[in-house]
Amino acid sequence: MAADAPTAQGAPEPLFQRLCLIGVGLIGSSIARVARARGDIARTLVVTARSQATLDRVRELGLADVVEEDAAKAVEGADGVIFCIPVGAYAEVMARIAPHLAPGAIVSDVGSTKGSVVRDLTPLLPKGVHLVPAHPMAGTEHSGPDAGFAELFEGRYTMLTPLAGSDPQAVQKIAELWRRCGSMVETLDPVTHDKIVAIVSHLPHLIAFTICSTADDLAEETKEQVLKFAAGGFRDFTRIAASDPTMWRDVFLNNREALLEMLGRFVEDAHALGRAVRWGQADYIEDRINRGRKIRRGLIERHQA
Amino acid sequence: MAADAPTAQGAPEPLFQRLCLIGVGLIGSSIARVARARGDIARTLVVTARSQATLDRVRELGLADVVEEDAAKAVEGADGVIFCIPVGAYAEVMARIAPHLAPGAIVSDVGSTKGSVVRDLTPLLPKGVHLVPAHPMAGTEHSGPDAGFAELFEGRYTMLTPLAGSDPQAVQKIAELWRRCGSMVETLDPVTHDKIVAIVSHLPHLIAFTICSTADDLAEETKEQVLKFAAGGFRDFTRIAASDPTMWRDVFLNNREALLEMLGRFVEDAHALGRAVRWGQADYIEDRINRGRKIRRGLIERHQA
Ligand SMILES: NC(=O)c1ccc[n+]([C@@H]2O[C@H](COP(=O)([O-])OP(=O)(O)OC[C@H]3O[C@@H](n4cnc5c(N)ncnc54)[C@H](OP(=O)(O)O)[C@@H]3O)[C@@H](O)[C@H]2O)c1
Ligand SMILES: NC(=O)c1ccc[n+]([C@@H]2O[C@H](COP(=O)([O-])OP(=O)(O)OC[C@H]3O[C@@H](n4cnc5c(N)ncnc54)[C@H](OP(=O)(O)O)[C@@H]3O)[C@@H](O)[C@H]2O)c1
Repeated sequence: MAADAPTAQGAPEPLFQRLCLIGVGLIGSSIARVARARGDIARTLVVTARSQATLDRVRELGLADVVEEDAAKAVEGADGVIFCIPVGAYAEVMARIAPHLAPGAIVSDVGSTKGSVVRDLTPLLPKGVHLVPAHPMAGTEHSGPDAGFAELFEGRYTMLTPLAGSDPQAVQKIAELWRRCGSMVETLDPVTHDKIVAIVSHLPHLIAFTICSTADDLAEETKEQVLKFAAGGFRDFTRIAASDPTMWRDVFLNNREALLEMLGRFVEDAHALGRAVRWGQADYIEDRINRGRKIRRGLIERHQA
Repeated sequence: MAADAPTAQGAPEPLFQRLCLIGVGLIGSSIARVARARGDIARTLVVTARSQATLDRVRELGLADVVEEDAAKAVEGADGVIFCIPVGAYAEVMARIAPHLAPGAIVSDVGSTKGSVVRDLTPLLPKGVHLVPAHPMAGTEHSGPDAGFAELFEGRYTMLTPLAGSDPQAVQKIAELWRRCGSMVETLDPVTHDKIVAIVSHLPHLIAFTICSTADDLAEETKEQVLKFAAGGFRDFTRIAASDPTMWRDVFLNNREALLEMLGRFVEDAHALGRAVRWGQADYIEDRINRGRKIRRGLIERHQA
């Protein structure tokens, strides 16, 4: 790739002249940290966020060359703009920045849903601006600019969901950005993406939130004992459930169809297993448990566990 | 405690003269390892299991003083006997060993359910033999004699569920055994025990098995992609779901009532959250997510997370 070609000084040419991150929480600040550490992602890194507190913190941490309060100003002159905010906020932010996007700029994102991103951003996209939606399959249950770290994306997949008419060069540039973040890049369509993340990520989070709120509804005395003796599997669920409410509310609402489909299947299966427990159907129970183990073995074989 | 008094040589007197472990998988072999390492738990450690392969392995690992194929023989002359087998096998094994139990012997166990243990063992208990059911709240997804380790119980709770008429000295001896394993000991009644573990352990396992089998039912192509991109929460569930099928089948069948009660509540709550997703009830979704976080904070405050 031309972007990899070393300059006269031996340092490769930065991918972007002026890269603007909109939102600088766990994901945005991790990209910023990689960009600062490598130097070959953006010549100038611009960061914007919603609150003054976050902007101040970004300055303290030295995460960007330019910290800009106003998103519209932040994107001016940028050849790359990455949405790193909850997916429910995209349409409103895009409406504000669209008139200020530079011709030829690439707009990308890191959102956990992709159908909604295409739905919300495409109608507002100025002519000559390229949209390349992306989703790094990496995260933790923490949020905010202090939660990020440069190694977050290493060895993890990033999914690109370019549109049919996407500019191949723009797609290549975003793919290269993620490779420089240490990620393995895969391309797929938004519908398939949303179906897969519904089962590997969104349903597990919905389940974790649910079991924790089920526990929270227990009578006070039982709840105290649950907290005391939480070590048996429940604790793992509470870790997942510690994730940011706004982000997850937006994810659920913006992957509604695939999530409800997977939830429906899951609840059917849970009912069937519960029924087998009620009626003492030992073979059925063992069979379902063994299928779970099979999936685990599949992950181990693929070095994903 | 008298049991703690050092002998003339300065080494404390062993708790049991002859301690027999029935079953030597993850939990049994971990107790054996602690007993070997400390020397103050059993003067003579006897181990029995079902298969020749396990007995051979126990000999190779040097986990016991006596390795005995026949459970009835193994318990002869023992002042302590601990069931370390799946709870569904208790009644059958107890029927075989009961005639061979020494007068005054203490029978205990490590099973994950406690109502069933009282139900299955009490009717077969010879006069003068003491029953002290116990459950160490510690485990991993691995099983067999190679899976155990001496630190398994350190800093974890062990729950004792003595019966109304239990001999206090027998209860104290089992409590001391678990303290010597590094455990914190709590006493509660079997019904409360079963209710708590239903939500902190059994339901999370049932859910993990279910979501894995839901994934296993997906069309081949989607399943491949699920395995590939499993990193988003799902992977944590597959770890829990890797646990032993026989053990978990027995746990589910022997904590039926409490488990079905908790499963019922959980499914109701999952339906309610799904309904809120369907109808776009953002506030409801956030509220449920926040309750999950509250539980997590509760754990962190209690140093359980
Ligand atoms: N967390 C994960 O595990 C994960 C993994 C993969 C992808 N993602 C996706 O990455 C995106 C960001 O997630 P994150 O975990 O980095 O979130 P985060 O740590 O909570 O940070 C969110 C950032 O977005 C800004 N923001 C929030 N609402 C906004 C609004 N209405 N307008 C403008 N800015 C707003 C916040 O600014 P202030 O701080 O000023 O409020 C903050 O800088 C989401 O779309 C999420 O789906 C997350
Ligand atoms: N695993 C956990 O996380 C955990 C935590 C707390 C409590 N527990 C409880 O601890 C007990 C043992 O679990 P574990 O994880 O140690 O299991 P494990 O690793 O699978 O070992 C089970 C042991 O029981 C023996 N066994 C199995 N079925 C038997 C039968 N029908 N008759 C006689 N012996 C039999 C096995 O002998 P062979 O090897 O010869 O077949 C093996 O030695 C269970 O009651 C479980 O509920 C488990």
